[in-house]
Amino acid sequence: MLRVHGMSDSGNCHKVRMALEALGRPYAWTEIDPRRGDTRRPEFLAINPNGKVPVLEIEPGVYLAESNAILWYLADGTPLLPDGDLPRARVLQWLFFEQYSHEPYIAVARYLRKFHPDPAAQRALADSKMDGGYRALEVMEGQLSKAAFFVAGRYSIADLALYAYTHVAGDGGFDLARFPALRGWLKRVGEQPGYVSMPA
Amino acid sequence: MLRVHGMSDSGNCHKVRMALEALGRPYAWTEIDPRRGDTRRPEFLAINPNGKVPVLEIEPGVYLAESNAILWYLADGTPLLPDGDLPRARVLQWLFFEQYSHEPYIAVARYLRKFHPDPAAQRALADSKMDGGYRALEVMEGQLSKAAFFVAGRYSIADLALYAYTHVAGDGGFDLARFPALRGWLKRVGEQPGYVSMPA
Repeated sequence: MLRVHGMSDSGNCHKVRMALEALGRPYAWTEIDPRRGDTRRPEFLAINPNGKVPVLEIEPGVYLAESNAILWYLADGTPLLPDGDLPRARVLQWLFFEQYSHEPYIAVARYLRKFHPDPAAQRALADSKMDGGYRALEVMEGQLSKAAFFVAGRYSIADLALYAYTHVAGDGGFDLARFPALRGWLKRVGEQPGYVSMPA
Repeated sequence: MLRVHGMSDSGNCHKVRMALEALGRPYAWTEIDPRRGDTRRPEFLAINPNGKVPVLEIEPGVYLAESNAILWYLADGTPLLPDGDLPRARVLQWLFFEQYSHEPYIAVARYLRKFHPDPAAQRALADSKMDGGYRALEVMEGQLSKAAFFVAGRYSIADLALYAYTHVAGDGGFDLARFPALRGWLKRVGEQPGYVSMPA
């Protein structure tokens, strides 16, 4: 059986749970908390030398890291990943956008404001993430003003990956009021079969 | 004919040139310089609302952004992308590693020290990128101590993507002396058919 090594309130890890639930795949979950130092222990570095969650254990001794690579692996051949060279490349375009232009602002601001042991000391750093985060949200709003989902007019891992931190962007201080298309899309994603919410 | 909208001395753009040359695909190139504000002009934002190079123009009016999504699109079905669900997911694992754990340190330090209009003013910021960059190089060294290339024992877009900024890491102040496996790999990549060097 598949096993996720992850932290339940991490958006990157929650993506994997969302995909497994949407696909109805059975899985086990081992809770790994980077804030406790779990990802720096030798036994974890043996499964991911980059020291990050999530890691998918495909079978004993076979591990795959990087949340969006895991999504691709799980979704390929299912309705969560469209057919066709260009639609598939577009899914990847949005997955790379998510990791480079979205997560480093929106997820990091959330971490600093909500999970850091001393959020007050991190306020200037968290504030420095806002402009980049709003730029990413504007790019998303532009796309969602033209289409119900990011690629090929239907729900895919591009939506799932972008949803993970966008739906908790408020934790980082982002106000979604001026992004109506994005708010409509959040609602649509929340209505997908097998939807599972992030633990509070 | 394919057209790349890119900046020749950007590693992210050079990846696309490397792939096109390795595959023997004809292409045109439009030079776009973000340092001159080219990526903020309305005509560029119309082809990539995220305002970043490279963009691949597949046919008139059809544009694909994100360097590693472009690599996947070009390489799928060629020897630059291995067969098999797990090897392909491993290629993606390294492509996401490159964009999240490597480029934001190694490429950014290079930009600040070599291309910024006032490198002295950016020195503290550039210095702050060194630890993360060395961590990425250590992860690469670990993998390359076990295998000649990143995935499936042969040259793929995982190597190509990681090569782009690693082979000019010295520009950012990184010393590769203590990474012998990595240096051997750089040499092997430089010997691949169709190899093209970055403009000086």
